[in-house]
Parts: sequence; structure tokens; C-alpha cells
Amino acid sequence: MKIGLLGYGVVGSGVGKIIDDGLTWEVRELEVARILVKDESELKDPRMTLSADEILNDPEIDVIVECMGGLEPAHTYVRKALENGKYVVTSNKKMLASYCSELFDIARKNNVTVHYEAACGGGIPWMASLDRTRRVDDIISFRGIFNGTTNYILERMSKEHSSFADKLKEAQELGYAERDPSDDIDGYDVRSKVSLSCVKAFDTVQNTEDITTFGIRTISEADLQYCEDHGLACKLLGNGEFHHSCISAYVIPVFLGKEDVFANIPLNFNAIESNSLTLGRAMFYGQGAGSLPTAHAVVQNIVDIWKNQDPEINDKFPVSIDNSRHEGCYYIRTGKPEFFLDAAAEWISDNTLLTKKMSLQKVAGMVEQADDETLFIAEVTA
Amino acid sequence: MKIGLLGYGVVGSGVGKIIDDGLTWEVRELEVARILVKDESELKDPRMTLSADEILNDPEIDVIVECMGGLEPAHTYVRKALENGKYVVTSNKKMLASYCSELFDIARKNNVTVHYEAACGGGIPWMASLDRTRRVDDIISFRGIFNGTTNYILERMSKEHSSFADKLKEAQELGYAERDPSDDIDGYDVRSKVSLSCVKAFDTVQNTEDITTFGIRTISEADLQYCEDHGLACKLLGNGEFHHSCISAYVIPVFLGKEDVFANIPLNFNAIESNSLTLGRAMFYGQGAGSLPTAHAVVQNIVDIWKNQDPEINDKFPVSIDNSRHEGCYYIRTGKPEFFLDAAAEWISDNTLLTKKMSLQKVAGMVEQADDETLFIAEVTA
Repeated sequence: MKIGLLGYGVVGSGVGKIIDDGLTWEVRELEVARILVKDESELKDPRMTLSADEILNDPEIDVIVECMGGLEPAHTYVRKALENGKYVVTSNKKMLASYCSELFDIARKNNVTVHYEAACGGGIPWMASLDRTRRVDDIISFRGIFNGTTNYILERMSKEHSSFADKLKEAQELGYAERDPSDDIDGYDVRSKVSLSCVKAFDTVQNTEDITTFGIRTISEADLQYCEDHGLACKLLGNGEFHHSCISAYVIPVFLGKEDVFANIPLNFNAIESNSLTLGRAMFYGQGAGSLPTAHAVVQNIVDIWKNQDPEINDKFPVSIDNSRHEGCYYIRTGKPEFFLDAAAEWISDNTLLTKKMSLQKVAGMVEQADDETLFIAEVTA
Repeated sequence: MKIGLLGYGVVGSGVGKIIDDGLTWEVRELEVARILVKDESELKDPRMTLSADEILNDPEIDVIVECMGGLEPAHTYVRKALENGKYVVTSNKKMLASYCSELFDIARKNNVTVHYEAACGGGIPWMASLDRTRRVDDIISFRGIFNGTTNYILERMSKEHSSFADKLKEAQELGYAERDPSDDIDGYDVRSKVSLSCVKAFDTVQNTEDITTFGIRTISEADLQYCEDHGLACKLLGNGEFHHSCISAYVIPVFLGKEDVFANIPLNFNAIESNSLTLGRAMFYGQGAGSLPTAHAVVQNIVDIWKNQDPEINDKFPVSIDNSRHEGCYYIRTGKPEFFLDAAAEWISDNTLLTKKMSLQKVAGMVEQADDETLFIAEVTA
């Protein structure tokens, strides 16, 4: 089966390597026929080209693998590939979460499908396991550490009692975090992955903007000291819950008991758990990113297409997110405590409180009203 | 697709329930046509019978699901089913690990297959994930907590500073441990699961007796006190390592650093990790047993057969186990310390030592020579 590879960076070159190496008989049935690169200096292989159209219009190519990242031109190329009747495998969570409805529509009309195991949980067989579980079972909820960069920062901060700024810089130097770290530290990367997980878990496509999202940009050493004093660990978790007529979907730092399995996920690893009717709790843990683990997930999807196996069903329905259905207790540190007088169950200090049990929607509304750039919020589950 | 169900205990009744409930369209394609029960008092459904032959010889039945447990008559029934050209799904690890070569041979000759996801890791999609990973990748090694009963006992002993005998009794009262607990506490249950994992991970069938196996029957409060004093946790782990011409395979209690993810697997949960070339470390965690999680795994295998998906390849080759290839440092408490003078790197007390780094084969030979019923051995990895 002939593959057109768009992008030859960290993930794309890993896909090329795995397929060229041909370790298994399944992989040896695949062939990277053409590769789109960005500029002439990269043209080091006769398969490489600077022209996307050459690849997208090549009738011999069955599958387009998009590993470019970013919204454009990735989105336009994927749309064109689907319109040309080609299957698509993408590792681009941001693009897919943004254009999910449109691309699934086009895929359906052209009798092809979009596959995206690598877009969420990279080296963890999370999306594949959701597919398999759902052959037999309904998913009730999921939660997980979907972002390795923030997990790394939170672990290092808490072990070394150092500042967020220091550990962000360290993560950037290690190549974990981008120069513009907003997607990671403000929770938008996790938001995209929660959105795509909801597609698989609940057959729903939502507006990603409706997913309540809090990041870790404002976390301080005092917040982690509170965790340490109370035997807690802080993790940034993405969550989805099924309520039949609606779902809850949100991203929020969580203070967990130290004996919780999630509390002990180290460094830049990912861990995601589903809870389903008959299987119960099942958790998956591994490298959430990296060249070969992510490329492995891409190649698995190509093998799925080649085997015509559990064909991705891109036939989903829109469903509303209702975060009034999720209730919790929240830790809030704010320069504007006067906005939270009604919510407080306990004041930890003049500017830090634990709320009464309340809905996420309600507390998110209060945070929006307070409009405090220094505010840090976490759910306390222990 | 018509199914003949042998056994209607914990797992069998779960399989019946999931298929009769028919939650998904895939499951609604399946039908439990006949059910073998043990005695007349159980005959509560017109599908039930006391005659195995009635089921095994029924030409309308495509798949035999064996959930009886024990070696016989389960083994004879499965053999007969395969000879009659029926696919087999079994949750019976002990039987399958014992008769793997024979049954796979018969399956091959009759152009059918044996499926056994539920026999190892019950509610964890461990075997299915091994299959999927191997489409693209080579497995280098695996290790895991394969037995919930011993995990429960070890956790409770260490948290409550109580004796092995007390906690074994508690596990028996909770229904986790059998009245004859030998399979669990002597490591034989894990040994069967390691054997079946080696089949999937390395395409090999071994003699299970060659799998070096140490259990937790002799563990004392002093051993766990040593762990607590040194920031360690004790877990019973099953292990497999691929060395091309041979494999290592062994079951042994391990003292792990408390920050190790395995150290924090609670209660009667299971957790298993594979390490493969491109995917790297990937871990799976969940209910290792229980009616519905195990039945879920059985039904997944039936759906696999129905979809003719990744058909189980029962074409394996015998490979020798060479545990001289695995080296470690070992904690040994023994009434016969004189047998370990050469091995000791450090004496913790008169009867307890840490060994130098040495091969598992060598230390196992010393333990055999010492022939000390009170001896406890653990590998120290932290």
C-alpha cells in the first residue's frame, strides 16, 4: 500500500524509519512512496518533493499521513486528500480537534476515513484500546495525564521546591516544551486530546471551546507546599464523563492522594484511565510523545487501514457539554478573594481557600468574574 | 455466530450476561446457544445441559468457550472441540499453559485457533495489546503484577504490619484466594501467565517447569520492615526477556523503590508493562480478575473470531529458557546462611543477606541446594 507522507520532522521521520526498516510482515506491505518536505535543503531522498499537489493528486497513493503540525496548511491538505478519496492518518491533535466535524463529513462523503491514534497519547495505545473496549462495552468516564511537559514541570517543581519559571525553562532546554509554551501550560494541548477522546469514547463531536480549561501557568511554590503538607500530589488532568443526554469535559490541575496511581506517574510520561461498564477501570501508561512512540501509533493506523480492520467510523453526532453535571471541591489562590466569599468552606490563608462542594460550571463562572491573572485553581479529590 | 459455553461459574455466567444483554451491535451478532453445567440443580435455562458431547458435537456451534477451570475435563473438552473444527476461547491459564503445544498443534491441523486473552490479565487488555504492538514492533521484555491475591496480601501486610497468615486468611474471606492458596502464594498462577505472555510476546512455547518461580509463602514482617526502612515496596512480579536465541522467564518477589509505578499498584489490581523497540515502555493496569472484567476479555476474543480479525496464529516454536542471562542483586533470609557465604555482598543480620550481582540461575541453584523451607528471596531493583 502506497503512502504519501506530509512532513518529515520528529514524527514524520520516525514513520519513514519504521516503514523503511520493515520489521514485521505487516509493515513490509507498506511503502512510503512520496515525502513532502519544507525547503530545498531537505531534499535528500528521491521520494522527497516540495509540492504537496504532486502527492495529493497522485492516483497511486492510497493513504496520506499528515505529520506537519499546525492548523494550516495541514488542514487544507487533509481536506484535499479526503476529497481525492484518500485515507488520512494524522498525528495533529490541534488541527483535527479544530476541524473534526468538517473533515469527518468530507471523509464520509468520499467513502474514506480519518485515523488519529497518534494525536492523543502518542505511545500509549489509548485510542486503540478505546476502540476495542467499545466493541463490547460503554465508556462511563475517562481521566488522564495527557501532557508530558506539564507533568515534568509539576514533578520537578515539587521535588526540588523550585519555581514554575525555572522548571519551564528546564523543560524547554530539554526539548519537552515549545518556545511558545502556551499550548502546554495553559492546558490547550490537553483540551484537544480530551476533545478527541470524547469522539472515541462517547461518539460525540463538541466545540472544543466549551471544554472548561485551567492550566498550570500560575502555580506557585506555596500551592505545592500545601500539597506536600497534606500528603497530596498535583497533576494536570483531562477528564470526560458520559451523562447520556450530555457530557462533562474539562481540563484542571488536581490535588490527588499520594497513593493514587496517577500521583506517581513520573517525568514526561502520560497515563490515561477509562472506566466502562463491564471492564471497570483500565489504565494505560507510557511515553506520550517522542519520535518513535508517536510514529509507532501512526503506523498502527496505517496497518488498520491496510487490514480494513475496525474501520474508523467517522459518523459522530454533536452533543452539548454540561459542566454543571460535575461537582467537586476546589483549591483557589487569588488576589481577589472577595469574589469567592460565598464559595468558601475553609480559608487556608487570606488569599487561599477550599470551596464547598459545588459544580465545575459554577466555580468556573466565579473565576471568570474575578478576572484575576494570578489565580490558581485545582480540584481536590483526596 | 453460535457459542457453546462450558462452565457457568464466575466467568461463564459473566460471558452469558454480556452476550445476552447485547449492549453493542457486535455483541448482538453473538448467541449463547448451549451451556454446560455441573449438576441438575443448575439446570435453570432451556439452553443448559449436563452433556458436554451434546455441545461439542453440535454442528451448529462455531465457537466453544471454556470457563470451567482445572486441568480435566477442560483439557479433553477443548481438544475435542478443536478436533471437531470449532474455534476455542478459554480463560483457563493453568490448562492452556500446561497443554499449549498439543492444543496449538491440533488447532493448526483443523484450521481453527485457540484464543486466551482472559487467561492472563483478565480485565487488562494486555494480551490484545501485545498482539497489536507486535504487528509493528518487537517486544524486548515484559514484567508485571499478574496476581491480585498476592498483591492484596503484600499491600495489607505492609500497611498494617500484620502477618502473612492473617492477611492470607483475610484474602480468603474476601473471596480473592482459594481454599488451597498454593497457586497464588507459591507463584504458580503467575508462572502460567508468564508462560502465556511469552507465547504472545516472543512466539515461543516453553516448558512451564523451566520458569524459575519463587512465591511469597515465607515472607515475614521482618522482610517488609526492611523494605519500609529503606523506602522500598515488595511486589510479586512475573518477567520475560528476549535474547534472540533464548529467553529469560521467571517469577520472583521484587523490592522496588516507592516512586516506581509498580510500587503503587493497590489492592487486588494487576499491572503489566511491555518494553518494545519503537513503542518503548507501555503499561496496562486494571482489574486482573472478577466476573465481568474477565468475561469482557472472553467476549472480545469471540468478536475477534467473528470479525476474523488478527486471527490468532497458533504457530509457535519451542525455545529454551536460560536464566543465566538475567542478573540481579537478591535479598535472602534463610535458616541456613552457611549456603550463601560466597554470594553475600552484605549481611543485614545473622540470617539475612544481600547478594552480589549474580545470575538468577546461580542464585536459584544455591536456594535449591540450601533446601530451606523457611527461606525468603526477593530481587532488589532499587
